[in-house]
Amino acid sequence: MDISHYMQQVGRQAKSASRLMARASSEQKNQALRLISAAILRDAAELRAANQRDLDAAQAQGLAPALLDRLSLSDKAITTMAEGLLQIASLPDPIGEISDLKFRPTGIQVGQMRVPLGVIGIIYEARPNVTVDAAGLCIKSGNATILRGGSEAIHCNQALAKLVQEGLVGAGLPVQAVQVIETTDRAAVGQLITMPEFVDVIVPRGGKGLIERLIKEGTVPMIKHLDGICHVYIDDKADLSKAADIAFNAKCHRYGTCNTMETLLVARSVAEQILPTLATLYADKQVELRCDPEALAILNGYPHLAAAQELDWSTEYLAPILAIKVVADLDEAIEHINTYSSQHTDTVVTEDYSRALRFMREVDSASVMVNASTRFADGFEFGLGAEIGISTDKLHARGPVGLNGLTSVKYIVFGHGEVRS
Amino acid sequence: MDISHYMQQVGRQAKSASRLMARASSEQKNQALRLISAAILRDAAELRAANQRDLDAAQAQGLAPALLDRLSLSDKAITTMAEGLLQIASLPDPIGEISDLKFRPTGIQVGQMRVPLGVIGIIYEARPNVTVDAAGLCIKSGNATILRGGSEAIHCNQALAKLVQEGLVGAGLPVQAVQVIETTDRAAVGQLITMPEFVDVIVPRGGKGLIERLIKEGTVPMIKHLDGICHVYIDDKADLSKAADIAFNAKCHRYGTCNTMETLLVARSVAEQILPTLATLYADKQVELRCDPEALAILNGYPHLAAAQELDWSTEYLAPILAIKVVADLDEAIEHINTYSSQHTDTVVTEDYSRALRFMREVDSASVMVNASTRFADGFEFGLGAEIGISTDKLHARGPVGLNGLTSVKYIVFGHGEVRS
Repeated sequence: MDISHYMQQVGRQAKSASRLMARASSEQKNQALRLISAAILRDAAELRAANQRDLDAAQAQGLAPALLDRLSLSDKAITTMAEGLLQIASLPDPIGEISDLKFRPTGIQVGQMRVPLGVIGIIYEARPNVTVDAAGLCIKSGNATILRGGSEAIHCNQALAKLVQEGLVGAGLPVQAVQVIETTDRAAVGQLITMPEFVDVIVPRGGKGLIERLIKEGTVPMIKHLDGICHVYIDDKADLSKAADIAFNAKCHRYGTCNTMETLLVARSVAEQILPTLATLYADKQVELRCDPEALAILNGYPHLAAAQELDWSTEYLAPILAIKVVADLDEAIEHINTYSSQHTDTVVTEDYSRALRFMREVDSASVMVNASTRFADGFEFGLGAEIGISTDKLHARGPVGLNGLTSVKYIVFGHGEVRS
Repeated sequence: MDISHYMQQVGRQAKSASRLMARASSEQKNQALRLISAAILRDAAELRAANQRDLDAAQAQGLAPALLDRLSLSDKAITTMAEGLLQIASLPDPIGEISDLKFRPTGIQVGQMRVPLGVIGIIYEARPNVTVDAAGLCIKSGNATILRGGSEAIHCNQALAKLVQEGLVGAGLPVQAVQVIETTDRAAVGQLITMPEFVDVIVPRGGKGLIERLIKEGTVPMIKHLDGICHVYIDDKADLSKAADIAFNAKCHRYGTCNTMETLLVARSVAEQILPTLATLYADKQVELRCDPEALAILNGYPHLAAAQELDWSTEYLAPILAIKVVADLDEAIEHINTYSSQHTDTVVTEDYSRALRFMREVDSASVMVNASTRFADGFEFGLGAEIGISTDKLHARGPVGLNGLTSVKYIVFGHGEVRS
């Protein structure tokens, strides 16, 4: 197979399908989502069989158990995929929405209309559910999409692609609005991220290694985040009971998620009071505490202690490990966060009005919180209805990205024959 | 001078100034704008003297009269610059604006806060007024900026930079919030567009050649447009008197602007009626008409006619030249526009309700109009208060870019001790 030729063809087909998708009615798009949902439930047995072929091959190749777990498509996962599509169908259609339509002194009326981006490329690991979630979000937002999942999931992804395309056709939408790349050749990814003539944006979903490679090689803009180095700062005006709840939840609710706290900052004047309470809670979960000298001195005698190194302030552990640092005050906390944070999500715990507002304004991260767990930084929790990813970039989309992140706006002018004088 | 070392230093200073600018109060920023405005009027004589040095050098080098004209800073231009700053001061401050603050079922309240992008690099030709306009917009939007103007304007730009910095200091803002690059070495531009660690976005203002070079070499995202190939489509349901006004204004109001019409599309069934009327109007202005065979046959005998070549449909003339094509209907017009338009600004003239809505929805351009001249596509005409440029990209900013285009938003969460369950 000539990968370059194949990908050009996929790109050209996507571009052409994107024009038809842009003018599809809300009802057509929702009908496609409902048809795909029903087809997934109808063909659950075939999907599990395709998934089993992937699992067998992956096991034979000695894939790690955690990756096998992600690759596997349970009955519950199939039901969840089908329900997810119905949820997306029930969301309001962002496309065609007109805002801020105002008359100007010249007589023209100017506003903005929300429109699809065009063609979205999505690159992800071997998780078959992403195929359906991503296809659903792109259909709803009137985009065409090119999906490239991890090669270990190829059989299941192709089976899902067939059902997606059946739904598109059933709703009178172009079959090439959702294309799953048919080859597992990695060169296809290199092509996908360097076809700005066909692809408007890439959404990579995967580990830091994958994304760093895509940034280096890609010429198409990306909606992405690399790291989630999230902070909680416990201010000396904090309600310490809230502080304990938040600092425990932000670390221990789940270890492997990007919005998990990785560094805890504590104001010096409350450190002796709150740190032992927290250390007791963390000890229950066997969380290792990598402390700066002050915190280490306060926690002397507690289990799982270690001295923090400089590198700890900029490490995303994704594990039961927490870096702890004692700081003088809000200023030092903000300075530390703006230096070491990955600009993902940071929280202050305080009852002080002015400090709460300062933290919110001055911390330069995608999600900034007062008195809430960092774990809330998520499209569903924020009320977006769905999430295609989280962005730590500042241009276009920042923070959890829902349907609107897959759209743009254009200016529209309602005139009555006006000319410029 | 070691350009690389110098630019790194400029970048580092800008980044550090951007943090202070992000937290500056509205009143500080407005005060800086007013102080700069006053200083420009106070030092008008010195500015003209610096400008004269640039003009003398440019004349000695044989710069073209049109470029000398742009370079020259008249009394009127000085007053306009000073007034422009006061206008920017009077605009509402976009920074810190909070929108869509909503309670979620978990109890947290989620919204979005508008924040500066950080550091804006602006690359422009030898037009000293851009130095002040751009500095003003960046100050108001809480960004730091690095300005690189055409080398022919170096003395005037440096004189202006001194006044800008005087205003910043007078308002208690960091002097390095606005830096004018001190060298005319072109390598400085190459550095500026490849320092994503210091520069968040580049706004190039200049000809297509400059921008194509920047796209090829740059790694920092850009807000830009290459071409303005704008269309007017006269539908067979058009009010032909409006059509004549709009088609004349869109071409003849100014020839050299990016929102000037370059191709006129006319529905077949009204072509014989409207084209001779228009040809008479255009003949007055000696506009050359490059016609497809049908239009050519209809206009046989009129002056300044030529047969259109394929290349004419994708040429931005910036001159008294117009391409004319007869089309069957709205569908062919939309198809032609979506194929050849530079996605800048396109207009339909029609009294038909459904066709007006279809054109607005289906034409994929930054500004789409019904019954209005393309010449309205402009930040001031659209009510943005000011304009840093026009974007034909779909990501981040599209169409005329005002203060909001120099900002981003972050999610903010007001919590009360909530944790995720």
